Amino acid sequence: MSQYQIAMVVGSLRQDSYNRKLAQALTKMAPPEFSFDFVEIGDLPLYNQDDDANQAEQVKRMKQQIAAAQGVIFVTPEYNRSIPGVLKNALDHGSRPYGQNVWAGKPAGVIGASMGAIGTALAQQHLRNIISYLDMPTLTAPEAYLKFDDNTVDADFQFTNAGTQKFVQGWVDAYVAWVKKIAG
Amino acid sequence: MSQYQIAMVVGSLRQDSYNRKLAQALTKMAPPEFSFDFVEIGDLPLYNQDDDANQAEQVKRMKQQIAAAQGVIFVTPEYNRSIPGVLKNALDHGSRPYGQNVWAGKPAGVIGASMGAIGTALAQQHLRNIISYLDMPTLTAPEAYLKFDDNTVDADFQFTNAGTQKFVQGWVDAYVAWVKKIAG
Amino acid sequence: MSQYQIAMVVGSLRQDSYNRKLAQALTKMAPPEFSFDFVEIGDLPLYNQDDDANQAEQVKRMKQQIAAAQGVIFVTPEYNRSIPGVLKNALDHGSRPYGQNVWAGKPAGVIGASMGAIGTALAQQHLRNIISYLDMPTLTAPEAYLKFDDNTVDADFQFTNAGTQKFVQGWVDAYVAWVKKIAG
Amino acid sequence: MSQYQIAMVVGSLRQDSYNRKLAQALTKMAPPEFSFDFVEIGDLPLYNQDDDANQAEQVKRMKQQIAAAQGVIFVTPEYNRSIPGVLKNALDHGSRPYGQNVWAGKPAGVIGASMGAIGTALAQQHLRNIISYLDMPTLTAPEAYLKFDDNTVDADFQFTNAGTQKFVQGWVDAYVAWVKKIAG
Repeated sequence: MSQYQIAMVVGSLRQDSYNRKLAQALTKMAPPEFSFDFVEIGDLPLYNQDDDANQAEQVKRMKQQIAAAQGVIFVTPEYNRSIPGVLKNALDHGSRPYGQNVWAGKPAGVIGASMGAIGTALAQQHLRNIISYLDMPTLTAPEAYLKFDDNTVDADFQFTNAGTQKFVQGWVDAYVAWVKKIAG
Repeated sequence: MSQYQIAMVVGSLRQDSYNRKLAQALTKMAPPEFSFDFVEIGDLPLYNQDDDANQAEQVKRMKQQIAAAQGVIFVTPEYNRSIPGVLKNALDHGSRPYGQNVWAGKPAGVIGASMGAIGTALAQQHLRNIISYLDMPTLTAPEAYLKFDDNTVDADFQFTNAGTQKFVQGWVDAYVAWVKKIAG
Repeated sequence: MSQYQIAMVVGSLRQDSYNRKLAQALTKMAPPEFSFDFVEIGDLPLYNQDDDANQAEQVKRMKQQIAAAQGVIFVTPEYNRSIPGVLKNALDHGSRPYGQNVWAGKPAGVIGASMGAIGTALAQQHLRNIISYLDMPTLTAPEAYLKFDDNTVDADFQFTNAGTQKFVQGWVDAYVAWVKKIAG
Repeated sequence: MSQYQIAMVVGSLRQDSYNRKLAQALTKMAPPEFSFDFVEIGDLPLYNQDDDANQAEQVKRMKQQIAAAQGVIFVTPEYNRSIPGVLKNALDHGSRPYGQNVWAGKPAGVIGASMGAIGTALAQQHLRNIISYLDMPTLTAPEAYLKFDDNTVDADFQFTNAGTQKFVQGWVDAYVAWVKKIAG
């Protein structure tokens, strides 16, 4: 059994999402003491404070997955120079009701894939602001903005470019070390 | 018939939302040539790019309301140092599919109510980043971070404090002038 | 004599700065009723509130240049995911003493050159936050993040790539229209 | 001799700066194994990349102070919804020349004093973006936005309000634990 379970939160709901492929690729690059749990956020209701006393089953399930994890990786596209609403909605649910913020203390990693040149830099900046407030110690360096197309990873989620493979392996190694330092 | 119809987008779904009360109060302070259309965002699905070619009826309705307006006011709380996921989800829907961004060119106002001291400054900063990218010319000054409790407005949505009434009236006047300048 | 004088503020002090070259290129693309005034910010002291009642001559000169302009273009690199300290220092000087913010009301354009892929997106985001607070109505679209090397512009500050020339001309045209709308 | 030396960087040059007083107060609240070194940033030149190969003596001195420290506390006001230019200038100097970023790996704390209600929240958000890029693992919680006037601390830099004293002591305790975790 793995020592460190990492919750994987993907910001895009698109079936063939590049960010989901990137997340799959990351799971192949971690050491054996790490396992990964993909967190569904596409079935959550829109957050409404009136429901705080009576959270939906999907919200409870998501919060249990986060609570059970020793860390969280956010793999997200950029929508309109920020994170997708669907990802912010999941973050909002996990932080409530007041005093029951499930994200607190979980070591976080932030990474993202896009087709464009500017990549996901602005989304990641907003995300870092939010999860700092949510009390998640977050890996600082290296930043990882990955340019993706249909051939970036193969059917086994291996990067087809050796340089990209090496860069992402470096990111995973840094995140693994970060989790071990923070989670102890 | 009013010359300027303004779409009113409230970031909170809570029934007794302070931000909804603030939005109601704003509608009482505009000149007769302005009318307001409250935009429902609580019934939208979570945005999924796979649905771009087949947007839900609720999305089409929201986009029609925005398209018909000469300006948009965003009245929003701050959730976790950013805008609520529900509001970002609405912004994402309105911007898609690619090339059909319904927000473009609409003069925007940003305002918000909160109970706390820091107010909604950080939410408004992220929101301004997003709507600048969405090509919405946005009123710069005055910034408006309103501290609310149950007695801030009365049953007729009048501010009970004269200084607050005057400050908010100044904001509305500035927004009205901004819409006239931008929308022509 | 030109009808619209635009203050040009370059965020880099480097002698062969790509951003300075970009600024020079912009001046060649405006219509005849526009002229440009480059604002020196490299000789300003570090801002100290104790000097508010006795601003340095260089600060007074800069403020006079801004006051005399009908608009301001900021051409800036990104340093450490934000604007250079030298540019923020100039913005701080121009905003003080309290109540004598010289930037207020001037229509602004934001553009930048860099060597890297992510460009100046994060610097521009921080800059937009700051100048919104300083009450500068800012051109929203198109965003302009230009990738530069030694051959991007020639000795006459013409872009050597026709596509880039056309893109930047579009930005200048949009800024010109924005100044005319805001400054009247 | 102290085990942990912390570099104290104050964002304001004003002689009677509230942020300097807050920094002094912090030094009284740390355990005996912590000592503090105030870093002068008011005598630095404006950063110019042309000087990278020949950094000024003041820059070398600042970089030596940071290099010798096991952590850095930034105590800063908010100027125009961001950090002061003077502080950004110091951060820029410490990050250059390329590959010689002296801030990297130093555990950071971010705190600030202001007179106003919104406090220093927006400055701290920009600062967190910057120092994350500079590879400084930063204390997430609690956030600390302190409202100051001339009576907030006494002549011995003790908080005159017991609740504030307790809150700030909690912040110092959290920062001390963070340094021990990160610096080992």
